[in-house]
Amino acid sequence: MNPVRIGIIGLGTVGAATVELLNTNANQISARIGRSVVVTHASVRDPSKPRDCDLSQIELVSDPATLVSHPDIDIIVELMGGTDLALKLCQQAIANGKHLVTANKALIAEHGNQLFAAAHQQGVAIGYEAGVAGGIPIIKAIREGLASNNITSVAGIINGTGNFILSEMRDKGRAFDDVLAEAQQLGYAEADPTFDVEGIDAAHKLAILASIAFGIPLNFKAVYTEGITKLTAEDVNNAEKLGYRIKHLGIAQRSEQGITLRVHPTLIPQSQLIANVHGVMNAVRVESDAVGESLYYGPGAGGGPTGSAVVADILDIARTIDADAQQRVPYLAFQPDQLNDLPLLEIGAIESAYYLRLQANDQPGVMAQITKILGDLAISIEAIEQTEPAPDDRHATIIMLTHRVTEQSMTKAIKQIEALPTINGAITMIRVEHFNTRQSS
Amino acid sequence: MNPVRIGIIGLGTVGAATVELLNTNANQISARIGRSVVVTHASVRDPSKPRDCDLSQIELVSDPATLVSHPDIDIIVELMGGTDLALKLCQQAIANGKHLVTANKALIAEHGNQLFAAAHQQGVAIGYEAGVAGGIPIIKAIREGLASNNITSVAGIINGTGNFILSEMRDKGRAFDDVLAEAQQLGYAEADPTFDVEGIDAAHKLAILASIAFGIPLNFKAVYTEGITKLTAEDVNNAEKLGYRIKHLGIAQRSEQGITLRVHPTLIPQSQLIANVHGVMNAVRVESDAVGESLYYGPGAGGGPTGSAVVADILDIARTIDADAQQRVPYLAFQPDQLNDLPLLEIGAIESAYYLRLQANDQPGVMAQITKILGDLAISIEAIEQTEPAPDDRHATIIMLTHRVTEQSMTKAIKQIEALPTINGAITMIRVEHFNTRQSS
Repeated sequence: MNPVRIGIIGLGTVGAATVELLNTNANQISARIGRSVVVTHASVRDPSKPRDCDLSQIELVSDPATLVSHPDIDIIVELMGGTDLALKLCQQAIANGKHLVTANKALIAEHGNQLFAAAHQQGVAIGYEAGVAGGIPIIKAIREGLASNNITSVAGIINGTGNFILSEMRDKGRAFDDVLAEAQQLGYAEADPTFDVEGIDAAHKLAILASIAFGIPLNFKAVYTEGITKLTAEDVNNAEKLGYRIKHLGIAQRSEQGITLRVHPTLIPQSQLIANVHGVMNAVRVESDAVGESLYYGPGAGGGPTGSAVVADILDIARTIDADAQQRVPYLAFQPDQLNDLPLLEIGAIESAYYLRLQANDQPGVMAQITKILGDLAISIEAIEQTEPAPDDRHATIIMLTHRVTEQSMTKAIKQIEALPTINGAITMIRVEHFNTRQSS
Repeated sequence: MNPVRIGIIGLGTVGAATVELLNTNANQISARIGRSVVVTHASVRDPSKPRDCDLSQIELVSDPATLVSHPDIDIIVELMGGTDLALKLCQQAIANGKHLVTANKALIAEHGNQLFAAAHQQGVAIGYEAGVAGGIPIIKAIREGLASNNITSVAGIINGTGNFILSEMRDKGRAFDDVLAEAQQLGYAEADPTFDVEGIDAAHKLAILASIAFGIPLNFKAVYTEGITKLTAEDVNNAEKLGYRIKHLGIAQRSEQGITLRVHPTLIPQSQLIANVHGVMNAVRVESDAVGESLYYGPGAGGGPTGSAVVADILDIARTIDADAQQRVPYLAFQPDQLNDLPLLEIGAIESAYYLRLQANDQPGVMAQITKILGDLAISIEAIEQTEPAPDDRHATIIMLTHRVTEQSMTKAIKQIEALPTINGAITMIRVEHFNTRQSS
């Protein structure tokens, strides 16, 4: 059979790794799918710049528009990033009947609905495994491996930079800013780390995971997002002492009322497997009716892992390139006309346990005031700890863990407690997830 | 489109769960693959026995031979177990052009090569995701998700019964026999637990994992197998104190020399994620060139998880039921004529670190004798601990951890040490894996 011909837009870290992987493992790739896969063209902004891959068999161009309309290219691999030019090029590629593979989570999360609609019209595939959790085949696991399941929850460590920072803060008692600077030096974090540490990158990935888990259209804007920039070494340390660990989680949950999508720091019991995912590694935990709990772990970024996912998508498309579009796995797991229409709920609607840290005047009656407010709102306390104030301080620090309650109630309680004259400053609130899974049978 | 019609052989726990799953999630299944899946027939040994599923739409027969030749069945699901009648029925189903889904790991591990050859001839699919690690989509992850990778090692906790027993021994300091009896009461272990505790079940699964990871024919007989029946609470406890945990692992490794396949108790550093997989849960750790380390975790047995895998296979086949056979994922990951011909090595060829426990006379010079034997064989010691003998005992217990060395050398050393007149009884040897992964880039 004729080789499948690839055109790659962008030869940065992931693009170069993709070319190298297709070269190095060319024999086993054709032994797997029964035909060979060759990169015939690539577009780069600066053709004179040296690249970390063998370019001898590749025609380099500087204008990506020539790739998406090239008659001799079967699959366009978009690795340039961004959502403006990348969107236009992907739209053109689809219009020209090209299959598409991308590692661009922002593109899929923000414009996936229209891209999938266009691709469906044209009968072409779009692979985006590389967009979520790098080397972990999580899109495949959810869309295909768990296809017989009703999925009720997905929770993941889906930003390696953030997890590296939290791991360092915990292991070495370091401050956030200090670790971030090191992560930037190591190349784990961008010069502008906003996307990573404010949770935007994780929100993109969570929007994608939620869509394929629940069969709903992509809705990035509905993701409630809180970063890790305000976490203190004190909270990280308190969590450890209480038997928990703080992770920056993306959580998508489905209940009868609807769907909640959120990214925020979360206390997890240390006994949970996902609490033991350290450094730049990612992991996604899925809860579903037939299987119960399953978890997928691996490197979430880097050329090799991301290139691995790009090539896996290429091979899936190459294998079925002559097949009916109907025989492929649908873009968002469900047939395009069968997506679910579940309501998306506000963050106030979630139910969670909470960690609270507050400073109170060291005087009698304060604790009674606080517990009365909580009790009146039916919030029960799981644990409470008060540290004696330092000799030169008249404030005591109070740490509390609550049982599960709606966020609405919790927010109301916090406002009332903060309004007490005996309370000093704002209350720190971090959500707690126990992940108590029912035993599957 | 017409529904895809299923005939199930065997309605035990997994069969009933499969029927229930196809019923309960029927709407979402057809919303996913664009056509419905219906169980039209099932065969059971005793049609009068009550079953844990709705049988109102199913024609029950007592002779499974009528199913495999029935003109109105598209996919045969074999859930009867065993390797005699099951093999014959599967062969007949294939000969009659039926696609096949099975949860029967023994059947695939021992007869898969001939079944796949026959299926290839007939152009039909065989799905066996349910045969390994129950609800974890590990076959899919390895065959498809990591398709662009050269896999160098697979290591898994792939028998839930064994892991439950080891977890209990560790947590509660209980003896093997004691926990086994409880596992039998709880229904985790069979009345005859040999398959589980002697590692035969794990060896079946490992043979399958190795074949799809390395693209080699199935070779169950080449798996070196050691059970957990001889593990003592003392060794479990010693491992903990040294910072390790004992797990019953199936390990398949590929080196330039060839492939080693083995199932045995293994000390793993507690910091490794797989060391934190407890109770009846399973996990499979994969090392590959592009991704580095990845891990897949979930329940390895039970009706729901295994049924989930059965239905996932059914959906994969149903989606491509009208496609060319060439467009399906090959049985053993590689095209049938492209399987690798790598030599299978004896256990002596492996390289490993070792835990040794021995009893020596409490007299001067013994340690010098032992360390001389090890030194002469170039075996270096990582840690050594000697416990004082009890007042009424003239033997001291010595615990050693060695660095990595070939098993051949280790076995030779053990024989020489056991031959020393100062050594009392046999030496306990348990292999140690550190899983030091190179950082993937």
